[in-house]
Amino acid sequence: MKFAVTGGDMRQAKLAELLVKDGHSVSAYGVERLKIDSVTRREKLSEAVRGADCIVLPLPALSSPGVINTPFSGATLTVNQLLSVISDGQIVCAGRVTEDLREAAEKTGAVLCDYFAREELVIANALSTAEGAVQIIMEETPCTLSGARCLVAGFGRIGKLLANRLKAMGAVVTVSARKHSDIAWITALGYGAERTDKLQGRLSDYNVIINTVPARVFDETLLRDVSPDCLCIDLASKPGGIDFKAASELGLRVIWALSLPGEVAPVTAAMSIRDAIYNILREKEVEV
Amino acid sequence: MKFAVTGGDMRQAKLAELLVKDGHSVSAYGVERLKIDSVTRREKLSEAVRGADCIVLPLPALSSPGVINTPFSGATLTVNQLLSVISDGQIVCAGRVTEDLREAAEKTGAVLCDYFAREELVIANALSTAEGAVQIIMEETPCTLSGARCLVAGFGRIGKLLANRLKAMGAVVTVSARKHSDIAWITALGYGAERTDKLQGRLSDYNVIINTVPARVFDETLLRDVSPDCLCIDLASKPGGIDFKAASELGLRVIWALSLPGEVAPVTAAMSIRDAIYNILREKEVEV
Amino acid sequence: MKFAVTGGDMRQAKLAELLVKDGHSVSAYGVERLKIDSVTRREKLSEAVRGADCIVLPLPALSSPGVINTPFSGATLTVNQLLSVISDGQIVCAGRVTEDLREAAEKTGAVLCDYFAREELVIANALSTAEGAVQIIMEETPCTLSGARCLVAGFGRIGKLLANRLKAMGAVVTVSARKHSDIAWITALGYGAERTDKLQGRLSDYNVIINTVPARVFDETLLRDVSPDCLCIDLASKPGGIDFKAASELGLRVIWALSLPGEVAPVTAAMSIRDAIYNILREKEVEV
Amino acid sequence: MKFAVTGGDMRQAKLAELLVKDGHSVSAYGVERLKIDSVTRREKLSEAVRGADCIVLPLPALSSPGVINTPFSGATLTVNQLLSVISDGQIVCAGRVTEDLREAAEKTGAVLCDYFAREELVIANALSTAEGAVQIIMEETPCTLSGARCLVAGFGRIGKLLANRLKAMGAVVTVSARKHSDIAWITALGYGAERTDKLQGRLSDYNVIINTVPARVFDETLLRDVSPDCLCIDLASKPGGIDFKAASELGLRVIWALSLPGEVAPVTAAMSIRDAIYNILREKEVEV
Repeated sequence: MKFAVTGGDMRQAKLAELLVKDGHSVSAYGVERLKIDSVTRREKLSEAVRGADCIVLPLPALSSPGVINTPFSGATLTVNQLLSVISDGQIVCAGRVTEDLREAAEKTGAVLCDYFAREELVIANALSTAEGAVQIIMEETPCTLSGARCLVAGFGRIGKLLANRLKAMGAVVTVSARKHSDIAWITALGYGAERTDKLQGRLSDYNVIINTVPARVFDETLLRDVSPDCLCIDLASKPGGIDFKAASELGLRVIWALSLPGEVAPVTAAMSIRDAIYNILREKEVEV
Repeated sequence: MKFAVTGGDMRQAKLAELLVKDGHSVSAYGVERLKIDSVTRREKLSEAVRGADCIVLPLPALSSPGVINTPFSGATLTVNQLLSVISDGQIVCAGRVTEDLREAAEKTGAVLCDYFAREELVIANALSTAEGAVQIIMEETPCTLSGARCLVAGFGRIGKLLANRLKAMGAVVTVSARKHSDIAWITALGYGAERTDKLQGRLSDYNVIINTVPARVFDETLLRDVSPDCLCIDLASKPGGIDFKAASELGLRVIWALSLPGEVAPVTAAMSIRDAIYNILREKEVEV
Repeated sequence: MKFAVTGGDMRQAKLAELLVKDGHSVSAYGVERLKIDSVTRREKLSEAVRGADCIVLPLPALSSPGVINTPFSGATLTVNQLLSVISDGQIVCAGRVTEDLREAAEKTGAVLCDYFAREELVIANALSTAEGAVQIIMEETPCTLSGARCLVAGFGRIGKLLANRLKAMGAVVTVSARKHSDIAWITALGYGAERTDKLQGRLSDYNVIINTVPARVFDETLLRDVSPDCLCIDLASKPGGIDFKAASELGLRVIWALSLPGEVAPVTAAMSIRDAIYNILREKEVEV
Repeated sequence: MKFAVTGGDMRQAKLAELLVKDGHSVSAYGVERLKIDSVTRREKLSEAVRGADCIVLPLPALSSPGVINTPFSGATLTVNQLLSVISDGQIVCAGRVTEDLREAAEKTGAVLCDYFAREELVIANALSTAEGAVQIIMEETPCTLSGARCLVAGFGRIGKLLANRLKAMGAVVTVSARKHSDIAWITALGYGAERTDKLQGRLSDYNVIINTVPARVFDETLLRDVSPDCLCIDLASKPGGIDFKAASELGLRVIWALSLPGEVAPVTAAMSIRDAIYNILREKEVEV
């Protein structure tokens, strides 16, 4: 099969190499500053895309509305430029597809699929994020993780996996959640349990606090309780769950860690994206 | 507060004792053959129920349609007999409430609450069930669990907790599921993964197979692959997920293990029921 | 090869079957009441032993001084009877060889090897014992192991593995030891730590106490602190580490659990013995 | 009490701060370039040492024979200079004391104690080392640790703890050892097992290989099998267990990670040293 890898970061580079290893023909565009083995680099987008069975856009697909995410390229590539060279029926696989992108693609007849909508990729991503968070804690604290008192706020995918890994490393783990049923799970799995909406006055003992909730949980009132030695990590995307301004004024150390999978484990991330794309193609009855 | 504990097994007995320990006044009916400390036993249902702030029925509430579950009593107690002595507005807490029971209660003005509908109890129950299954495997196999190759079919609450405990005990654990997302979780948590609908020809190596799926998964075709030394346990309620007749004809050993929480950990089960009842009462703004 | 399996319990029976499965010729004596598949039973000891490359005695080899351990036989078999039919140079593998047995064997020219002196078997045994202890706790307590507060006294082989399994099952585990270095290991592995010689006044909160120390640790003074609901298990061989008389007078429930491997996992025990015997034979340059 | 902290790295700085926090009076010498809160810095060694109840030398105490280890000082401090200002009976606590240092100290009447000779510190150190190795693997590989195939060579303190942490993080862990009994433990704890002396031809599948054996295990012959993508980490001190020259010629990536505890967790390391020093003083019946 022919793939056109367009834009993106290290994950796209590794994805391109994995596709080549699987015997596919891969052309690349919009990744000039990335080292990629064995792919055919194209100067013109139209050359890269022509005849491709599948065009792969990055995760996330867009850096801003209407603009493809090409951090390792000097040039700007707009959605319109891309769609103008895509033929009717060509399959485009992209990550975190926005409504605008979907609508634009539909008009041109491109078959747009969001690989990040697939649960298997989301979970693989959560695992990489959890592992990346463990790495950050190790790097940023002068103590061992063994014996560290950690609070994980939120018991979604990332919260579940992060709590698992932290406890496995010997940390003393408490997880906060809102739902009674999550509290029951948290207890059944052997963690300390807190109610996310009742954290006030209960934060002073933690060495590490990690937020995974995509809503403002840690406001100034809560942060006042946090020990000055405590490391705070926010894994939630914008606007984040920790009030950075308040934290900064209180002298707390906060790390906002986004896009960890691409940073800490680009090859694993690329493998997950590859598998998700293959699953998409198979479901469209394309032989991979 | 005044509680009337009516019918049930060891769990109800322990529940009654726990309520007494918490300082409540507890009368008991329909549990003659159970040893219970410090409760007032009543010969007449009406005496037990009169003035009670909360009447507690067992889990499950009914043994057959219209009949309260009283395995440790000589007498039969019907729903109608019970409802005839309950005053308007009295709170009745029961486990696994059927539609019929609910309708009957509504007519009399009783406030019927199903404590088994609460997720926190369901999870506590799943944990006891998982632990009970581990106990059965230990008792019924002449090998250690360490190193035993186990298949857990299904990744619901019980499947999740059972896989966790089996792996923790050193077993080599594979979990089967239907959904892609469950397969991703299974892999992320370090288990071997199988598709429940593609088990054929893949069962011959297991030492233990545990079904948690409430549907016929293990039919004769699948069972033909199972090793004669393998222990099969079905945790799914009627009609069960293993074809017992076929298994028996094939000479396989199958254990159908129902109601494990009440059997293996009645005190823990009673604690969970107590907590769920307290939560119900608090949500009704009854001071407990 | 030819094996003569003589005396013993279920483990010897399973061992005989495993040897047959490996293609050896096996004759049996002194195990009349045990079901064993595919072995040649002999009425006379001399017939069983004649021509055998290896005579296998049970674990432990003797039931009392000078008497082979034959709990599943009507007849008594003395060491002298056995040695009188063994030829010079015949290999005898036995478990827990006493000094007397060794001396007697040397006089007859038999080559006596103690398979229980092999560390790999001792560890396998410790693992079975730890697992058996977990099973007993599950069977004998009306609560789940999850959340149970357990004290393991002693951090030898069994203590190490038992603490590991209990924690894995969700118990809250404390381990006591005498040596500073053991305390450091206990802490590093995430258990609570106590000094075995400073347990006084610190026992009242445990749900389960398991002794693995082969010395009187739990005397009357200590036992006075133990909660009446607490389950005490002694895994140490005679005279045991718990004062049974004092415990009984205090109304405490104590289980003295000896020889767990043969009881809870005879097949695994037999496999370990088989492997140890093969290792012994290989080291004697006998081809197995 | 009065402490004189002399020489050393970040760990000594943190140790000084911990001692101050515990209410002791602390003077510092030979650590000019380290930030330390609340201690009295001395320009002259004699002033720092005079009247101190305990002089604390770093870990390791010497950087070369006869020279105190003062990497964060401009000046050189010899053992003779130090001993010349120490009074008879003053206690000197130092890490990894050499025979020469011990002899020199004895001549002056100083009471020299090696805190690194204490097993509790060695184990705490091993834990930090294991955690540091996990951190390095996370930082240096583009894949997640989950699912990574790791070989740990050696089953001493560091090997035991590293295998535990790697498995906990989801890696597929194999451990190699020489002794039969270690192999039995490795198996009982659920790792894959290899014989360290029979690794040839068995290394090609690993993603990460970590040596903990203080002897040349990985020579050119073995290294030829290693995959070019594999990360090799040597935790053994000089001369190390991996042939670096051969590895480099084969294009393998090898990281020689020494002194991890001081680097990755200086505060935890300082706490462990403080505890060991307190234990030493208490055993000398000095009130701390």
